Amino acid sequence: MIQGIARWLGYGVLAILAAGILGALYAGLKLVSYDQAEDRDRLEQKLVTLGKMSARVDASAPRPNFVVIFFDDLGYGDLGAFGSTAVETPAIDRLADEGLALDHFYAAASYCTPSRAGLLTGRWPARTGLTHIVFPTGHIIDSGLRIMGLPVRLPADEILLPEALRLAGYRTGMVGKWHLGDHSPSLPNDLGFEHYYGMLHSNDMVPLPVYRNKEIAEPAPADQTTLTDRYTAEAVQWIAANADEPFFLYMAPNFPHIPLYASAEQDGNSSAGLYGDVIADLDRSVGAVMEALRKFGVADDTLLIITSDNGPWYQGSAGAVRGRKNMVFEGGPRVPFIAHWPGRIAPEQRSDSVVTALDLYPTLLSLAGVPLPEDRIIDGLDVRATLLDGAPTPDTRPVYYWSGSSLLGVRMGPWKAHRRHRVSAGMSGPIIYAPEKGPWLFDLERDPDESYDVSQTRPATLGRLLQNMTAFDNEVAENPRGWIQ
Amino acid sequence: MIQGIARWLGYGVLAILAAGILGALYAGLKLVSYDQAEDRDRLEQKLVTLGKMSARVDASAPRPNFVVIFFDDLGYGDLGAFGSTAVETPAIDRLADEGLALDHFYAAASYCTPSRAGLLTGRWPARTGLTHIVFPTGHIIDSGLRIMGLPVRLPADEILLPEALRLAGYRTGMVGKWHLGDHSPSLPNDLGFEHYYGMLHSNDMVPLPVYRNKEIAEPAPADQTTLTDRYTAEAVQWIAANADEPFFLYMAPNFPHIPLYASAEQDGNSSAGLYGDVIADLDRSVGAVMEALRKFGVADDTLLIITSDNGPWYQGSAGAVRGRKNMVFEGGPRVPFIAHWPGRIAPEQRSDSVVTALDLYPTLLSLAGVPLPEDRIIDGLDVRATLLDGAPTPDTRPVYYWSGSSLLGVRMGPWKAHRRHRVSAGMSGPIIYAPEKGPWLFDLERDPDESYDVSQTRPATLGRLLQNMTAFDNEVAENPRGWIQ
Repeated sequence: MIQGIARWLGYGVLAILAAGILGALYAGLKLVSYDQAEDRDRLEQKLVTLGKMSARVDASAPRPNFVVIFFDDLGYGDLGAFGSTAVETPAIDRLADEGLALDHFYAAASYCTPSRAGLLTGRWPARTGLTHIVFPTGHIIDSGLRIMGLPVRLPADEILLPEALRLAGYRTGMVGKWHLGDHSPSLPNDLGFEHYYGMLHSNDMVPLPVYRNKEIAEPAPADQTTLTDRYTAEAVQWIAANADEPFFLYMAPNFPHIPLYASAEQDGNSSAGLYGDVIADLDRSVGAVMEALRKFGVADDTLLIITSDNGPWYQGSAGAVRGRKNMVFEGGPRVPFIAHWPGRIAPEQRSDSVVTALDLYPTLLSLAGVPLPEDRIIDGLDVRATLLDGAPTPDTRPVYYWSGSSLLGVRMGPWKAHRRHRVSAGMSGPIIYAPEKGPWLFDLERDPDESYDVSQTRPATLGRLLQNMTAFDNEVAENPRGWIQ
Repeated sequence: MIQGIARWLGYGVLAILAAGILGALYAGLKLVSYDQAEDRDRLEQKLVTLGKMSARVDASAPRPNFVVIFFDDLGYGDLGAFGSTAVETPAIDRLADEGLALDHFYAAASYCTPSRAGLLTGRWPARTGLTHIVFPTGHIIDSGLRIMGLPVRLPADEILLPEALRLAGYRTGMVGKWHLGDHSPSLPNDLGFEHYYGMLHSNDMVPLPVYRNKEIAEPAPADQTTLTDRYTAEAVQWIAANADEPFFLYMAPNFPHIPLYASAEQDGNSSAGLYGDVIADLDRSVGAVMEALRKFGVADDTLLIITSDNGPWYQGSAGAVRGRKNMVFEGGPRVPFIAHWPGRIAPEQRSDSVVTALDLYPTLLSLAGVPLPEDRIIDGLDVRATLLDGAPTPDTRPVYYWSGSSLLGVRMGPWKAHRRHRVSAGMSGPIIYAPEKGPWLFDLERDPDESYDVSQTRPATLGRLLQNMTAFDNEVAENPRGWIQ
């Protein structure tokens, strides 16, 4: 008994010391203004690389327009075209009917910032260093990231999709949520977008003004009930102004990320509640963008892509797969994907080829005639043949699943390994009492909702997948940013 | 800054005090031997009530045999008959084909102990006081429950299903997991089972001997690889010995609760891994019990029921519904249910009538000709007409969802309210940043996986359901045990 008390007194002393240290840190946070500085050589090298890419642009490439609509937290099961019985999305469903829907498409991460970093760089977020959520400058978490020496913006030495497309003469515009840093040199206009209108962070973060390029267009707090409609109007106006040249429009609505706000027009009409109203607003927005493409005569020259940054959070549906946003289970990164290009993508195509958001970078550059940068690893694959002609993607290509900077899972073909197990047992769950240990191996073909670990009957397959992850970890440890030169 | 440090120093002092108190409690736990004592009057009243029930037994009732097979953590999607594509359960599926399967059947709770308390008493677990998991006597959590004055066994003044059935001359046997207390007066043999063979706790708890009646048949640690087969053999032997009289066999396998152990015969054969092997063992067990019923000529006189205590934990499938064990979402309490009674239940029946595990108590007593006890509230409904003739259950009957003793949700007809929201945002989820607030209202018909809160468009419905919960809370607060006299 005496020993027990002494041990707990010891813990108490440790607790008081820790509290003191935390208190001092907390009080001092505002003094910290650290922000990572890119290596000057790397910034110069980026210019050299862009120059080399520019010299090798293939002028005979088709150079279609690209419109990428990237929803926020829209789940795998949140669209009519992906099986929803509660939400109605007639405009989006029509595009799916007229084009290609992919049932095994993966975002680059299961939450916002790294997912967007992957989309725009074609590289696994670990290579950019931006594997965590960024917060508004001055927010306590932002200060904490700076103290820890972690990036609070996408490194400016990355070559973003719009920067590369401009080498082929593309006009580049962005409407919506950025979430890759709220200050130069990592703002949308710094990294390839000629035009920007939107919010720099998630719609639950404060302060949250709306920017047009680098100027505040609407001070915080912005009116979120009209946000989707304003994004639509801005997108349509931008298309009108740029329809005569090849263009890339990156449209990233802030919804259905919470808090949810529906338009006055829609509020209360959906049978799926406020979430359904918000998605109905988004569906009308997609319809209006498509209408603008038709009106300005460029619909047949435009590859339109609709997808999401990660799975559903509190509300929303992941359909028939397990898990939600933030998780390694499929519901984390698996999202709807629709590709629409009249005359080039045949109607009513449906495929279970494995494609990732990283693949859009090389695929779009290929269609634009722009070569890949040769000074850095690009993880995405050119899936042009899959999107346009239904060719399968190779079973040997790994899809990685992350929790922050930790690589926790890999999929190759039908097999998926969870390197170690992290799954909440839910409320009141005695998780400390009987946690299951990883690694797990799932057969996604036979067991699409990851219910049954087959590692004991398939040890060789598990070993192969774990080995692939170890090799990737080692590669990143040796060359964190994935530089080739 | 000074204020910040002072505040944290204050927290540190509080922490050290708390640590000291906890340490003293921890060291002193072994000294505590508190166990609740039932009111002597209530124990006497139980005898009087049983006497009254006995006097009113209807001798003309059909008095079929009852076999209730109650799996542990088997999920809503873990059987072939309930849509599994990975797990094969031919014996169970055959019984489903020959009888009735219910798609909206609810256990009394979303984890073990209260679920079993509800099944055997016909009362919501809150009325028994046993809303938490019990642990082996001497375990630190057991000591903690005693200190807090919470029950560590089912109160002996409850009238259990086997006690009531014995009034009509039933033989009563139990094989498997009890989990309602590991000492008298709350052991299986104390509360109506003439014969008992099994484990008193979950198979992840220690120490864990196997008991035959009140004697240890196999000291801890028991061999779990042969457990299912030994349960089967014991059940078959008991059926053989009791086939000449009406009997009630309660068979509660310890699996697929973790840790998983398959038989040598099965190990490695299932395409759903070890979990699949374990379920294959259970399926063979069900087949052997059914075979015994046929062999001893009582199959046509036996109502066989197969269900589970709650949804799947780490592995296992909840099918197309949201959530898992421990949760208020459907995957917590919604479980498979099969009823089989040749000649009385027509083959290939399938129903979405809402039925709960509480309903078995009045339904089985009705078939046995035993009246309900009149001195206490019985929450279950006699669903004889639903099981035998496909009659629907009333939309006005509430199904309650619990987290421990807290009533968190209610379903009435297609509507389900979550009184307050508790859902993990999963790993790395910034749950402190943007939690969604309840209450939520779901339309289970249109939105079976609880993805879309419709409370804002259906405020009256939400109000009705919340009011029902408030009324139930008030009733329990005034009369915790639900005594009528």
